[in-house]
This record gives sequence, C-alpha cells and structure tokens, in this order.
Amino acid sequence: MSNKQTFDSVWYGFHVATMVDGRYQVIEDAAICVKNQSILWVGKQTELPNYHAQSEHDLGGGWVTPGLIDCHTHLIFGGNRANEFEQRLNGVSYKTLSENGGGIASSVRSTREESHQQLKDSASRRLLALMKDGVTTLEIKSGYGLSLEHEIKMLQVARSLGDDYSVDIKTTCLAAHALPKEYANRPDDYIDYLCDELLPEISKLGLADAIDAFCEGIGFSPAQVERYFKAAQALGIPVKLHAEQLSSLGGASLAARYQALSADHLEYITEQDVAAMAKNGTVAVLLPGAFFTLKETKKPPIELLRRYQVPIAIATDANPGTSPVLSLRLMMNMACTLFDLTPEEALAGTTVHAAKALGISGSHGEITVGKVADFVCWDVESPGELSYWLGGNLIKTRVKSGEVCHG
Amino acid sequence: MSNKQTFDSVWYGFHVATMVDGRYQVIEDAAICVKNQSILWVGKQTELPNYHAQSEHDLGGGWVTPGLIDCHTHLIFGGNRANEFEQRLNGVSYKTLSENGGGIASSVRSTREESHQQLKDSASRRLLALMKDGVTTLEIKSGYGLSLEHEIKMLQVARSLGDDYSVDIKTTCLAAHALPKEYANRPDDYIDYLCDELLPEISKLGLADAIDAFCEGIGFSPAQVERYFKAAQALGIPVKLHAEQLSSLGGASLAARYQALSADHLEYITEQDVAAMAKNGTVAVLLPGAFFTLKETKKPPIELLRRYQVPIAIATDANPGTSPVLSLRLMMNMACTLFDLTPEEALAGTTVHAAKALGISGSHGEITVGKVADFVCWDVESPGELSYWLGGNLIKTRVKSGEVCHG
Ligand SMILES: [Zn+2]
Ligand SMILES: [Zn+2]
Repeated sequence: MSNKQTFDSVWYGFHVATMVDGRYQVIEDAAICVKNQSILWVGKQTELPNYHAQSEHDLGGGWVTPGLIDCHTHLIFGGNRANEFEQRLNGVSYKTLSENGGGIASSVRSTREESHQQLKDSASRRLLALMKDGVTTLEIKSGYGLSLEHEIKMLQVARSLGDDYSVDIKTTCLAAHALPKEYANRPDDYIDYLCDELLPEISKLGLADAIDAFCEGIGFSPAQVERYFKAAQALGIPVKLHAEQLSSLGGASLAARYQALSADHLEYITEQDVAAMAKNGTVAVLLPGAFFTLKETKKPPIELLRRYQVPIAIATDANPGTSPVLSLRLMMNMACTLFDLTPEEALAGTTVHAAKALGISGSHGEITVGKVADFVCWDVESPGELSYWLGGNLIKTRVKSGEVCHG
Repeated sequence: MSNKQTFDSVWYGFHVATMVDGRYQVIEDAAICVKNQSILWVGKQTELPNYHAQSEHDLGGGWVTPGLIDCHTHLIFGGNRANEFEQRLNGVSYKTLSENGGGIASSVRSTREESHQQLKDSASRRLLALMKDGVTTLEIKSGYGLSLEHEIKMLQVARSLGDDYSVDIKTTCLAAHALPKEYANRPDDYIDYLCDELLPEISKLGLADAIDAFCEGIGFSPAQVERYFKAAQALGIPVKLHAEQLSSLGGASLAARYQALSADHLEYITEQDVAAMAKNGTVAVLLPGAFFTLKETKKPPIELLRRYQVPIAIATDANPGTSPVLSLRLMMNMACTLFDLTPEEALAGTTVHAAKALGISGSHGEITVGKVADFVCWDVESPGELSYWLGGNLIKTRVKSGEVCHG
C-alpha cells in the first residue's frame, strides 16, 4: 500500500516562475499542490508524489507567477480629478487650479463629504480593475481624510474591501499626507495632533498595518516626519515613507533609521540614502506612473540600488492627482521602458519584493512551499511578456488562497 | 392620430459627446434612435419624436461617444518579440539582436511560417483586447509577408477578422514596410516587384482599402515610395505613409502631393510638410506608443498642426517591435501626457479624425444622423476621463451597428 499525500487541490499544465530570491527560477511543466489555502508542494509535474486531491486543475498551458502585489496605492478617494487633468492640458496653470481649491485639497474635500458606502463603491471599481490585471494583494493608504473621523472612515473602507473581495489588503495610515485647512500654517500642531490623538486611536482600533508620511518641501519636513515615526514606533506600528520624489531631503535615510518597510518614489535619492536602506532592509518602491504623469526627467538611480542590493518594488501609486493608474502590469512596462529595469526585476518588484515592502515576505510573493496559494496563470509564452505588452487581457486563471477567482 | 416614427432601437439614459467637427458638442440627457444599423435621430431625450421601436435601452447613466477607431495597427504577426524586449533590457545591443535575426526580420520569418489560422488566432486575442477597450473600427496593415503569397495571407486574415467579430476592419497593404531578404541590397528591384506584380494582384483580389510604405533612412527613400504611390494611384487605391518618424525626408509632403489619407508618426515633420498636408486634406496620425517605447525625445509639432488645422488622429500602432500596445485609450492618455494634446483632441483623434484617416468620414466617427450606429457608453462622469485613467475597465455598453456587443 502506497502512502498517499492529501491535498485540497492540484494544479498543472503550465510553467512556473517561482520568483524565489527575485529571480524567475523557472520550473517547466510544473505542478502546484494546495492544502489549507497554502502551497504544500511545487515541482515538476512528473515528480508529483502519490496523492489524493479534492480537485484537479489542468490549466492547459501558459505561465504561472505569484499573484501580483501592488504595495503602494491611494485607491480610496472621493471624486476624481479628470477635470483638473483636462483644465491643465487646456492651459490652466497649477496656481490657478490651486487657488480654485484644486489639487489634493479637492480630493480631501470630496473624501470627507462622501459616505463609507460611496467611497467603497468607487474604490471597488478600481480594485476590480487591478484584480483583473493580476493583483491578489494590495496596500491601501488613507491620507485624504486628515482628521481622525475621516482617516478612520478611509481605513475602515479599506478593511471592508478585503472582506468583500478575493484579495488581501494591507492598510497604511497616511495621515501625514498633507496639511488640512484646519491646521493651515501650523504643521507642527498638526503633527502633535497626529502623534497625541490620531495615531493612538487608529492603533487601538487596529486599523493600520503601517503608517506613512509625505516628506517633501511641499509636504512635511524630516523633523516633523521623525516625530510622527517616533509616535508610531512607540505604538509598535511599522513605518513607510514617501521620500525624495521631488528633492533630496534625506527622508529615505531617516526612514531607514526607523527600519521602514519601504521608502517610496526615490528619484532624488543619494548614495548615502541607498546605503542606509541596504543596511536596514528597507525596500525601494518605485512609482513610474507618477514619474510619467508628472513628466519627471530625473530617474531613480537603478544602478546604485542594484549595487547595494536594495530590493526594488514597483507599484501603481493609484491616486487621482499624479497617477490615475489602474494596471500594475502597465507599471511593470513603464519600469522597464522609463527606468531600464529588466522584465525579471519588474516581476520581482510586483511579487517577492512587493511582499517585503508590506512586511509579508513570510507568507506572500513567491511560489514556494508554505506560502499562501495566490498565483496567476498567464496566457503568455514567457514571463517577460508581462512587462512587454501595454494593455490587453493576459490572464487565464487567477487563484487566490487556492480558489479560482473570476472578476 | 399621431404620426409615429419607426425605429429598430432607441437608446437613452446618458450624455453624448457627438464629436462633430472634432469637438465634444455635448448633448446632455440624450437619446439615440437607430434604424437599419444607422443613427436616424439624436438629440435630447425630452425632444424625442413620437415613435415605435422594437427595442428600448436605458443605459442608466454615463457618457456616450462614437465607437473608437484605431486607424493604424499592425495587428497581425507571427510570434512576438517579448524575448528581444527582454534581451535588450538585459544589455544585448540592437546590433547583436539584428545579427541574430531579430528585429522586423524575425516577425517576417514567423509571419511567413504561420498558417492563416495561426495568425488569425493570435490576432483575434489582440483584437478582442482592443474591442474591450472601446474600439469598433480598426485598420490592419500587412507588411510582415513581403511577398505576394504572404501579403495576401495577411490581408485575408484581416478581412476574415472583420467577418468573425463585431468590428469594421479596413485593410492596408504595407508591402513596402521593409526589404525582404530575397531582395537584399536591391530595394529598387523590390519596388519594381511591388509595382508590377504584387499591387496589381492585391488590387484584383480587392484585398486592400489603401496602401502604405515606410519612408525612412532604414526603410524606403522618397523616390522609391513615389514609384509605389504612382502604381497605387494607377490602380485607384488611396495611399498612406509612415513618415518623418526618425528623420526629416519630406515624406509627409510627398504623401500630401498624392492626396494621402494620412501621414503617420511625424516627429520630424517641417512646417512645409504641415502646410502641404493641410492643403491636401491629409490627416496627421500620431503614434505615442512607438514614441514611448523607443524613448524618443523629439515630439511631433502639435502647435504647427493646430495652426494649419491639420486633423490629428491617435492610434496604437500595435506591433511586436516598437509598440506592443493593446489599448487605444492608453494612447489617448499618452497623447495628452507626452504630446500635450487636450483630452478633447485625443478623443477627436480616435473618432472623427481617425475616420478621416481611413477615408470613412461619411459613415463613421461621429454621433450624427446618417452615421453607422457605432457607439460606446462609458462609466465616467466626463468624457475627459477617457484620457485620464491609465488602464481600467470603463465600458458599460459597446454598440456596433445598433447592436450591443459583449466581448
Ligand atoms: Zn503615494
Ligand atoms: Zn506603423
């Protein structure tokens, strides 16, 4: 009598790019065995153990990769800013738009006005677009509420999206995104409010898996960010940072000193910042959608990041102002075309390294034993095709926690 | 007794951007009445005549635009060049790739090897992606066959796609795309072959709605293109031209002199070219996907085109080498972001002006009485949103010839 292993499901009929260590690590003619929503076995189909399984799935060709992870989004917001986009292209200046209440202030106004359900409805449509493009895990930031009441609302909407859709959601409290009008010209008072009132309450409610801030001349200073980081650290919440997008302020080094999960944008990062990130295991999250939309010309220093072996992640930065992006695969293409990443690096940036940027490397981002069974079978002849095509529907099958998901 | 007008179908519950004269020309709370696949009435819903209709469709909100028209694609090709894309990003030079049979030669080889059915299968997937993004009419060029047999095969595949899918297809014979290896170093002999043998046969078979050539240092010279144009003119086939993409050769002026439907790419076009196009009604087709993928920096001179009132169209240039693009909406965004078009110009560029680039202005490209009933209802709050989002699924309903099309 043979000993048979018992699986919930067995999947075969494809090649796999496992993405272990950020490389394709190809297994041709592979099989994946799932039990309790996790990968219990992966290897060549011909080497499958004797098994009994409740279901078998021949996917009939294509390539399987880990489910894509979008590790930086502002998916929840009221209204949109297509009208601003249109006005700008019709020659209206940023200054005029801003005087008319445009820019981030407009998103804050709309987000505060809209109900939980309204915010959820519009975010759901955007979430479904990302999922149809291969996303199985994503991060959602608050940051258009800028008051306890409305930051809580945003984070609750984010959590509830995770309850309703076949996707894992990590929430980030970005209350230090911009200065609300109530605190005009009083940024330090706002930071006090965040440290003394907002963060402790968000922490008590368990609504934030991390916190984030916008460290920039037009955002908050490194000193202000550091106070916010200290408050988060005291509450045991990991930090992330929007850093060096438009200028070099040393925000990435600051983030690294606080063992940040990631520093994001990084166009103006210095070698000293990169070294600090490498030393502290901080992931570099690159956001080519914002670079493209803002017509930036200074690229993040890819060679430096490679030399210091800083893990590079790629995300949509989905937001209504600077990156109205609803496709993570398009960001992989832009990372290659605009930043000269290789397609393998781009895929690592939306799988294993994106998982690290969210602090979930132990459970997500690779096709290996013990990881959650999140994977996508793509109708492609090579994994490089994921970064090659702009647009299109390449998905054959999307599997979340061992179950096929439609829509 | 009231006189009732009879329609096949009546559609309402949306605003319309008719795009007449290339402007939104908005009708709020509009209705569209269709008979015999054409628009028989359009106006405010409250002003509908008394009517009897076989079907009524309340689309429940959103904006209706003309169905999108992709007026420049190389949709049919064997294989793909994702591997080249990946090799280039891994540091392999164009020279090495070319010596190893890469570049357009590789697409010609694959296209010649593949059967009608193989070519059709892969092109169908790409066609469906474009259709899902709002395309109801598209142009497909040959140009990877480069011999009578294989150019016929490509054009027949293009025609058969039009038979099988709810889309109008215009075919263009691009036999003067590149020099096939059989004619290495003998471009004039190849042009002789095209003029004396290939074009007359293609014309006899009725396979080409237009002809096209690649006028460039690495393509064919203006003198060679002119011989090819003369042959087409003698056969009564309209001409188009890939012109001034990488250098200024006066190709656009040449095209205009032959009353070309369009001159395409145009990064290096001069004021003299623009004036010639304006005088001869030649449409400027801009291809931001190739500009983006090739990392070009010299933009087409939009201000000049505006000043001379040359109609500007926008297309995907969908092809395996320089523009692996499967979304026309993304090209609208790139036309705005890279070339500073307004969203209104971008939409005119994929509707009314794209129709003119295909010689079908009389029947396509606007929501007006007498035009074919091709329109799309988008889940947006303003038509500018079509150019604003990168990615996403914005379509509520796609109507081709008065019928709702799924897929
Ligand atoms: Zn951001
Ligand atoms: Zn072309």
